[in-house]
Amino acid sequence: MNVVDIITKKKNREELTREELEYMVKGFTDGSIPDYQMSAFLMAIVLQGMSRENTVALTEIMRDCGDVMARSGIEGIKVDKHSTGGVGDKTTLIVAPIAAAAGVPIAKMSGRGLGFTGGTVDKMESIPGFRTAMEKEEFIRAVNERGIAVIGQTGNLAPADKKIYALRDVTGTTESLALITSSIMSKKLAAGSDAIVLDVKCGSGAFMKTLPDAEELAESMVDIGRASGKNMIAIISDMSQPLGNAVGNALEVQEAMDVLKGAGPEDIRELSLNLAGAMIAAGGIADGGADESEPSVMRGIRLAEEMLNSGRALEKFREFVEGQGGNPEIINDYRLMAQPSRSMEVRADESGYVTKVDALKIGLASQHTGAGREKKEDSIDMSAGIVLNKKVGDEVMEGELLFTAYANDADKLAKGVEEAKAAFEFGKIKAERPSLIKRVIE
Amino acid sequence: MNVVDIITKKKNREELTREELEYMVKGFTDGSIPDYQMSAFLMAIVLQGMSRENTVALTEIMRDCGDVMARSGIEGIKVDKHSTGGVGDKTTLIVAPIAAAAGVPIAKMSGRGLGFTGGTVDKMESIPGFRTAMEKEEFIRAVNERGIAVIGQTGNLAPADKKIYALRDVTGTTESLALITSSIMSKKLAAGSDAIVLDVKCGSGAFMKTLPDAEELAESMVDIGRASGKNMIAIISDMSQPLGNAVGNALEVQEAMDVLKGAGPEDIRELSLNLAGAMIAAGGIADGGADESEPSVMRGIRLAEEMLNSGRALEKFREFVEGQGGNPEIINDYRLMAQPSRSMEVRADESGYVTKVDALKIGLASQHTGAGREKKEDSIDMSAGIVLNKKVGDEVMEGELLFTAYANDADKLAKGVEEAKAAFEFGKIKAERPSLIKRVIE
Repeated sequence: MNVVDIITKKKNREELTREELEYMVKGFTDGSIPDYQMSAFLMAIVLQGMSRENTVALTEIMRDCGDVMARSGIEGIKVDKHSTGGVGDKTTLIVAPIAAAAGVPIAKMSGRGLGFTGGTVDKMESIPGFRTAMEKEEFIRAVNERGIAVIGQTGNLAPADKKIYALRDVTGTTESLALITSSIMSKKLAAGSDAIVLDVKCGSGAFMKTLPDAEELAESMVDIGRASGKNMIAIISDMSQPLGNAVGNALEVQEAMDVLKGAGPEDIRELSLNLAGAMIAAGGIADGGADESEPSVMRGIRLAEEMLNSGRALEKFREFVEGQGGNPEIINDYRLMAQPSRSMEVRADESGYVTKVDALKIGLASQHTGAGREKKEDSIDMSAGIVLNKKVGDEVMEGELLFTAYANDADKLAKGVEEAKAAFEFGKIKAERPSLIKRVIE
Repeated sequence: MNVVDIITKKKNREELTREELEYMVKGFTDGSIPDYQMSAFLMAIVLQGMSRENTVALTEIMRDCGDVMARSGIEGIKVDKHSTGGVGDKTTLIVAPIAAAAGVPIAKMSGRGLGFTGGTVDKMESIPGFRTAMEKEEFIRAVNERGIAVIGQTGNLAPADKKIYALRDVTGTTESLALITSSIMSKKLAAGSDAIVLDVKCGSGAFMKTLPDAEELAESMVDIGRASGKNMIAIISDMSQPLGNAVGNALEVQEAMDVLKGAGPEDIRELSLNLAGAMIAAGGIADGGADESEPSVMRGIRLAEEMLNSGRALEKFREFVEGQGGNPEIINDYRLMAQPSRSMEVRADESGYVTKVDALKIGLASQHTGAGREKKEDSIDMSAGIVLNKKVGDEVMEGELLFTAYANDADKLAKGVEEAKAAFEFGKIKAERPSLIKRVIE
């Protein structure tokens, strides 16, 4: 096989064979194909597209390049959840205990990542004593005993994707449906669950800015997952403004606990119930209800509400925190978590209606307070972040609180405040709240 | 300026600024932009095309990246000639003395190159004693004294093109009108003549296989040259079968001398007169004839014929060879040039008509005999090659000579013979000779 011939085929929009794709991916991963040939190949994929068959093959090849997790020790249908990423997204902390309480085994590996706040693993580490590293045997035992365990990513999952992603980032080849789909799905498939619920974000704070783009990505990922034999459900949700009110690490854990207690902002509660419902449905727990004509996600949502209203989800959260070494007393006393030394309240200059709270800008504000990493080596300030008091559609009176910023450094606080202020827009006419759930693909 | 932004603009088919193109070309040439970013950029150019304005800018930027030759010491309008390359193309050796005899100063730098035979410089070195290296002062003096000097490429002409070309070769990004045009024209413009005559080849032995492709390239190069203030003429000529009968180094020099003596194959004579006529026209020598309505290339061709028929072109060739240290006695005795130790004659198996002599295959046959380099480091066998006795449209009787192969090694001879045999096709009906001059753009 010849690299230039394969690049030329793709350039001419021809279908590739699985062997040709394998030759490119493996050769690039082991270093025998240089990055300058791979980047030309990636640009050809971006501009000429890729068939469904080739995307399936590419995803499976990348999945099989590294470790593929075996979860045979865990009883029941393992359901994973993946969000394409947004601002204020603490749903995993809510959804996982709800679904576990309903009987879905949650054996989740989460990331850290760069961005506006830490990843789920970072957020959980804001709980004193919480351990996110576990040996495989302990992990499986924890899931079988408590029904839930969440740890940091271990093993060498999809190393081809890691190397290709780094190259795409510096060669203007990120925007390709086939490449985005195969990147996400290769990792999810390597993580080895039976079913996957996708939360595809849409709006200014998300990678996909418009609904058609988000729908195309969601459909592509669902399609590829099903082609690999996975039960797939996707929810497309709004990310034009932050999800919930809190953006940070400890701040988001606290808001997640609010929701588990039956309180918290309405939007984060609603999305959490939908995602948990989808996971319950995907896990086969919602099957066989009285009314067979009701979609299983709807039945899942009713079960999820039951878990929340009865306090069983909160109880599962307590068990989960305690089981992984965390102090469960934080549930009753948030002050046991990291506290910021500084805060600043920002109030409205005049009365009116909030017409925009730009998710991207609030995300950057949170990062500036110290809650997120800019570089891999950066440390995270667990207590820093932004808490919103007003969202789109809210009426605001002169002098009313818009948001509070938290930090441990005066400069960072000032930078965060400035960026968060710029996220707000106001008008004289009440704005529509953006619809939260745009579409469910099941 | 940001590399990824520039790649992304090109990916989105946006017009680039001259500064952006300069940033990419200079950065890649000085090593500050890595090859993986350049190859993604090149693939985007191949697939999204490039405007005339951007192609002009790219060409000028590549021209200015290295030395730009000043020819101020040479009197008269300097005319350069460039062929896009074919099999059996020895026109420079004929055209240069004709045009010089007519009064066009010929100050030519030629290449060596990979391929079916050596380049013009290699061919000339098959003349015993001939020197192709000269200091600049000697070169200029030679042109002013004799009206003609041909040397190997000196200086650091268009180093950006050299580096980009090498990358294109291994990333499937050769086929782009903008990139081909800017590659050729940047070198030609850096060589510093006032006018350029292009011989754009078309057919199986050429880079451009079809007439529309060749026309597009010719028009693009003429356009870019004119945009840089050069007087441009292009001739599109056939390369479906080899030009003339001889393919090799010494063999081609001998055929060139045949033509200068008024003999030689008709096709190479015809193309040489057309190219020399174009050079004479571009050099302003054919201006001001009695009939102003006659195109100047036509007047140039009449002058070129005069030079050939009067023996003045042959006399100029003798002066040229002697002036550069070569033995002029070769003109009268070809045996003074390198002689091959082996030869093989191949004859027709049955009677009929020649319907095809594939130029590419004859070129490969010549390379196999040892006449061409496969790798830069390879040495060339000056005496090796192929001499055709039959061309397309010729009638052939059983047992008649088709071609003779020459080499200094039995294996090479056998390989050359085998490949050359495969180039021939026969039929029962007389085939049309392909028209040699497809189009003149002036």
